Amino acid sequence: MLARLAADRARVDRCLEGLFEQRHVVEPRLEAAMRHGLLVGGKRLRPILVYAAGRALGADDDELDIPAAAIELIHAYSLVHDDLPAMDDDDLRRGQPTVHKAFDEASAILAGDALQTLAFELLASSRSPRLGALVATLAKASGRDGMAAGQALDLAVVGERPDLAMLETMHRHKTGALIRAAVRLGGLVAVAEDDSRLGALDTYAAAMGLAFQVHDDVLDVTGDTDTLGKTSGADAARDKPTYPALLGLDGARAKAGALIDEALDAIAPLGEAAAPLAGLARYMIERDH
Amino acid sequence: MLARLAADRARVDRCLEGLFEQRHVVEPRLEAAMRHGLLVGGKRLRPILVYAAGRALGADDDELDIPAAAIELIHAYSLVHDDLPAMDDDDLRRGQPTVHKAFDEASAILAGDALQTLAFELLASSRSPRLGALVATLAKASGRDGMAAGQALDLAVVGERPDLAMLETMHRHKTGALIRAAVRLGGLVAVAEDDSRLGALDTYAAAMGLAFQVHDDVLDVTGDTDTLGKTSGADAARDKPTYPALLGLDGARAKAGALIDEALDAIAPLGEAAAPLAGLARYMIERDH
Repeated sequence: MLARLAADRARVDRCLEGLFEQRHVVEPRLEAAMRHGLLVGGKRLRPILVYAAGRALGADDDELDIPAAAIELIHAYSLVHDDLPAMDDDDLRRGQPTVHKAFDEASAILAGDALQTLAFELLASSRSPRLGALVATLAKASGRDGMAAGQALDLAVVGERPDLAMLETMHRHKTGALIRAAVRLGGLVAVAEDDSRLGALDTYAAAMGLAFQVHDDVLDVTGDTDTLGKTSGADAARDKPTYPALLGLDGARAKAGALIDEALDAIAPLGEAAAPLAGLARYMIERDH
Repeated sequence: MLARLAADRARVDRCLEGLFEQRHVVEPRLEAAMRHGLLVGGKRLRPILVYAAGRALGADDDELDIPAAAIELIHAYSLVHDDLPAMDDDDLRRGQPTVHKAFDEASAILAGDALQTLAFELLASSRSPRLGALVATLAKASGRDGMAAGQALDLAVVGERPDLAMLETMHRHKTGALIRAAVRLGGLVAVAEDDSRLGALDTYAAAMGLAFQVHDDVLDVTGDTDTLGKTSGADAARDKPTYPALLGLDGARAKAGALIDEALDAIAPLGEAAAPLAGLARYMIERDH
């Protein structure tokens, strides 16, 4: 399981690094800021999900590289912008200075913008017969109906006292939408849009994505800054609503566990080919960073 | 000519407004900030070019709506971000408060992000057989090899004394790339990527796009704030390099005229169908805002 994770991470990292090789660079500082935001660390969870979901439905690794790299570009862009002073104002990310600290604010805004653009440029180079569905899936999950709305909701609830339903709505958009998109992109490489197995994958991804976030909140309480690569206790210090704050630490852990059970049930009909997806779901709530 | 401009502007405005109707809104403030950045004013030059270029090669208006709206979404996103305090720090745009003034900085960053995403989401819904080329054209023109690089170059030359070649490189990326993309998108709706008429259109667009920028610099000197809808004399006040500063006002006007001649020569072989494109080129250096 961990060897597979490391291999997939290395695989997508090679694709991502390749985007910066053997090309005419117009603006070196922009390019360097993009590289910093994209290539410095990162768990590569979303690409790993693209590979695992695609393989579960029979896709070849070679066909999965482009969607895997594209979704990581979207994730990286969102982190660069979320860290900006006007947003979450974070100095540290993946154990390194954030892009606006390592460069400057304008470079961070532009680098995030260009990372998003590069995601779609890369995806357009896919020779998949379902290119339209791939682009639509990635865009819908990233924009005003998905991740961007989630970040806006997140900013809106700071200092508020949201209930569990509001917190869940926020997370289902902020991180959940892109995790579901990762799984769907992998699936779409293998099968057509009306294949019912995509529905099973989606139920899996929705539950697993929320569990991922609940566990993130738990780690913010229990982890230490060195292991996390970001400031521990940052949510509480910033008066951000979290699952442990609403459910207690044990309650949050129980919720994460129940969500993972739900995810595992959803993919049980897919059989042995989905075993890596099951392993990933379990890993989501066992990881320490 | 002016009636045609107004009709095309109204046509793309209907498409753009339609993107905000009859839908479930996740985050009303984000949605409002996007609307403000997109729908308050705007010449709609790039959509107008999509229509004119597409028609010149025989495309139907209905097929051109989606690329026309998509490129305006990219343009709008870039304006929202360019106006941010960390970038050009503008309070006024199209005669109205900029998005970060009317809302706040975080909303402006997210609204710009989501406008970009929406461009690709919309384009993905095109049923063009050349969807991959459409997405690639729009993305390549917008990102690190195009507009984003141009904005980074623009920020880098403030206070510098760039020569004409550097100024031109900056403009060819910052505004030129998207204008060329507009013309190419229209063309691609009508003909295949290897059609030589796309080359003629591209020569037209490159020259016309640069003339547009030279004339913009001229207007910054000669126009007044009310007519421009943005602060007149802003470039000089900010010590930004301009064509009038390098060539003198008459020299800049002569350069714009020569570029338009070049643009007209390029499309002469396309005959009568390209007459609206020719009219647009002439209009570029006659407009007063």
